[in-house]
Amino acid sequence: MNRNQTIAIVGVGLIGGSIGLAAQECGLAARVIGIGRRRTSLQRAKRCGTVTETTTNLRKGVSQADFVVICTPIDQIVEFVREVLKYAPESTVVTDAGSTKGPIVMRLSDAKQFVGSHPLAGSEKTGAHHARSDLFHNRSVIVTPSRGALQPHISRVEQFWSRLGAQTFRMTAARHDKILAQTSHMPHLLASALAAATPSQSLAFTATGWQDTTRIAGGDVELWVQILKDNRRHILNSMDNFGKVLASFRQALEKGDQAALRRLLKTGKDNRDAVGN
Amino acid sequence: MNRNQTIAIVGVGLIGGSIGLAAQECGLAARVIGIGRRRTSLQRAKRCGTVTETTTNLRKGVSQADFVVICTPIDQIVEFVREVLKYAPESTVVTDAGSTKGPIVMRLSDAKQFVGSHPLAGSEKTGAHHARSDLFHNRSVIVTPSRGALQPHISRVEQFWSRLGAQTFRMTAARHDKILAQTSHMPHLLASALAAATPSQSLAFTATGWQDTTRIAGGDVELWVQILKDNRRHILNSMDNFGKVLASFRQALEKGDQAALRRLLKTGKDNRDAVGN
Repeated sequence: MNRNQTIAIVGVGLIGGSIGLAAQECGLAARVIGIGRRRTSLQRAKRCGTVTETTTNLRKGVSQADFVVICTPIDQIVEFVREVLKYAPESTVVTDAGSTKGPIVMRLSDAKQFVGSHPLAGSEKTGAHHARSDLFHNRSVIVTPSRGALQPHISRVEQFWSRLGAQTFRMTAARHDKILAQTSHMPHLLASALAAATPSQSLAFTATGWQDTTRIAGGDVELWVQILKDNRRHILNSMDNFGKVLASFRQALEKGDQAALRRLLKTGKDNRDAVGN
Repeated sequence: MNRNQTIAIVGVGLIGGSIGLAAQECGLAARVIGIGRRRTSLQRAKRCGTVTETTTNLRKGVSQADFVVICTPIDQIVEFVREVLKYAPESTVVTDAGSTKGPIVMRLSDAKQFVGSHPLAGSEKTGAHHARSDLFHNRSVIVTPSRGALQPHISRVEQFWSRLGAQTFRMTAARHDKILAQTSHMPHLLASALAAATPSQSLAFTATGWQDTTRIAGGDVELWVQILKDNRRHILNSMDNFGKVLASFRQALEKGDQAALRRLLKTGKDNRDAVGN
């Protein structure tokens, strides 16, 4: 990827803003065009330096872009990719940053210039003012080309994320969705259920344990309604699997079986320690 | 509480060490005697400045102490309190820092000089070298006197924790155990079950969400076997309640009922936002 690229970002929130900052900082792009519907969000994104220019006119924004990243809520991604491909040059490659991939990649399987991706980075915070140029440093980005995707397009998407400091993994959208149900979507649902199940009068007696365990429950509700809905089949499978482990804990507790409790806690600790941080 | 007190701490790990540091820093105690079984742990605790002197001889350690805090694993607390009361002066007050209170307070209901407590502070880290003098700042400490406890003794325990920067709450041991099952013990079990249920080959694709949600699963296994066993009745009740919320999530997912998902996520977010951090 050359250094004089023009990158367009549709949807300049935490992820879009961080992409803009990082692309400028690593010298990947001289121009970063922020595209959105609301002038106030665009102005804020520019004020924070995440983009170099802004427009509410998608046609104008992408007509000169070499590379476009769609960072909108997932239920708008397909529509925006189609819109972008109407106006962008034929050499332009389009990717996204959506947290689910199956439905998006399937619906866009005829869109040759599109290669889906999902950066495993983020925060419960939202908005371009929380953007960080190092958000993708040492993070994983999963790239999910459709069957007909062209190798040069896939490579450009992978190189893009690598330049922002991430490590890329290539897999099918279905495999992505299965893994992410286990590592992100089901955890979110559990954190939310735990927070919801805690009686209000007990909230004063929470400490760091509860706070860590429920942190992601503070995330944006609409975003998560879409993710849970989009990936519900895999999430339901993950819940089945989690339910079996939870049932083992319950049985061990009911019996007062310390050896079984120890074994279960040990498995959890081993997996947790393997990840770190 | 006067400033020239001698405090004895039985078990100088993260909590005991932090109490020692904080008591010296706020001028509550000139002498802090660390009591333990292993010389190496005691030496480390002294090297970190958490205590001013150490001994493996409990009788010697407590015979001049005005105030004693038992910071051992919970299955040893009752035994240590009885041992301390054999040798400590009649004016000495003894408390503990155990995470469950019912069984301990019940078994010690005849011990007039003992008033149980539980500081809601800690970390998945262990050992006196992780001790921090501000560990109790703005934290809650629940004080659980038995029915026959004397008011002056209760007050001395409450004042002790207040001086270390904490806010104290007085309640029965049963109420403590019910609340903590909801806010600490069941969350630990869930975090552990989630970590255990995540397939090893998916661990590479975890991000901050999974890491936060499972952080406490990295805690000490033996400590948690004891807590889960000790408070199993309340934890099982909390699991029933959590199970109902989880079943609502499952039903909403199965039906693809976005309004129900939104409502559940919103309840979780509201509770999480009410706590902060």
